[in-house]
Amino acid sequence: MLNLHAPTPGRWLDQVTPRLDLLLIDHAHCEKKAAGVAMNLLFAYVEHADLTRAMTEIVQEELDHFHQVRAILDRRGIRFYKLPPSQYGPKLHELVSKDEPRRAVDRLLVAGLIEARSCERFGLLRDFLADRELADFYGSLFESEARHHSTYVRLAKEFLPEADVRSRLAELAAAEAAIITAGEDQPRMHS
Amino acid sequence: MLNLHAPTPGRWLDQVTPRLDLLLIDHAHCEKKAAGVAMNLLFAYVEHADLTRAMTEIVQEELDHFHQVRAILDRRGIRFYKLPPSQYGPKLHELVSKDEPRRAVDRLLVAGLIEARSCERFGLLRDFLADRELADFYGSLFESEARHHSTYVRLAKEFLPEADVRSRLAELAAAEAAIITAGEDQPRMHS
Repeated sequence: MLNLHAPTPGRWLDQVTPRLDLLLIDHAHCEKKAAGVAMNLLFAYVEHADLTRAMTEIVQEELDHFHQVRAILDRRGIRFYKLPPSQYGPKLHELVSKDEPRRAVDRLLVAGLIEARSCERFGLLRDFLADRELADFYGSLFESEARHHSTYVRLAKEFLPEADVRSRLAELAAAEAAIITAGEDQPRMHS
Repeated sequence: MLNLHAPTPGRWLDQVTPRLDLLLIDHAHCEKKAAGVAMNLLFAYVEHADLTRAMTEIVQEELDHFHQVRAILDRRGIRFYKLPPSQYGPKLHELVSKDEPRRAVDRLLVAGLIEARSCERFGLLRDFLADRELADFYGSLFESEARHHSTYVRLAKEFLPEADVRSRLAELAAAEAAIITAGEDQPRMHS
């Protein structure tokens, strides 16, 4: 359903569990960035009414999630600040074509893969965090990330035929899996 | 209340009334841009919790207005497309300081002045358009633009003392009045 080509390596939970403060701060920034990505897509393809409606919904949901994470940080007395992000997003965006309509498809599919990976990881946090408040919180976000993934893949098919979208999604998912399997040193939502 | 230094010249209604199709298309883009400005401010000052909450509300309201204008265009059979914008926004953004915290104040006050001018013009459209559906529509948007203006001016005071914000608002409002008084050739919401 999520089109991911590799599961999260076991080392990721070991990396982030001792630094839930950093995970939460990074997560808030991820929700902000997800809202920004949807807004950028609305601007770029503003003549596509269906896309603008879907992006509006995603902007609103991601900003709502941003504030939910901020509230958790506040309750725990964790200061929220500008944390250097992981290179996961920039590495994926390097794969985006410069030429339309392939650029639109790539931007939508990359956004969809990030939602899919977030969804998979929220599921891991829901199932394995000993911290029950956070486990429940991640469980509550799981469904919307899966839905956003489906929305992005559906919208990509407005720009190219379904077979082309499917094969490009497989290529991008393979690249995404390689980035996730390689991992990063700093504990982040997408390290 | 709106801090504007000059009223809209009488020639503006004469310019836009025969081209309500262009006014509506431009208006939809203005609502999109207003949402984008609020999102950019949320990104730039993400550590300011009060600002991020206010920007989230403005993003949601402006996107809602965008879709309301799009629905009016659809009902009237007017095709929505990427229309070259007026130079009003770019000219105002040239006045923004490069150095913080004055940059934050300027960005907020420029956004607030654009809301104020939109509010004033929505009031003119409400009072003088013979097209009752549009007159009512602009009447319905009037209050939120006035509220957004107040929000932006209030937030500017989180970055500099009130007296400094007041004097800078007067400078920027004088520049805004000069741009509006000079006008532009193409009929637009801010021509």
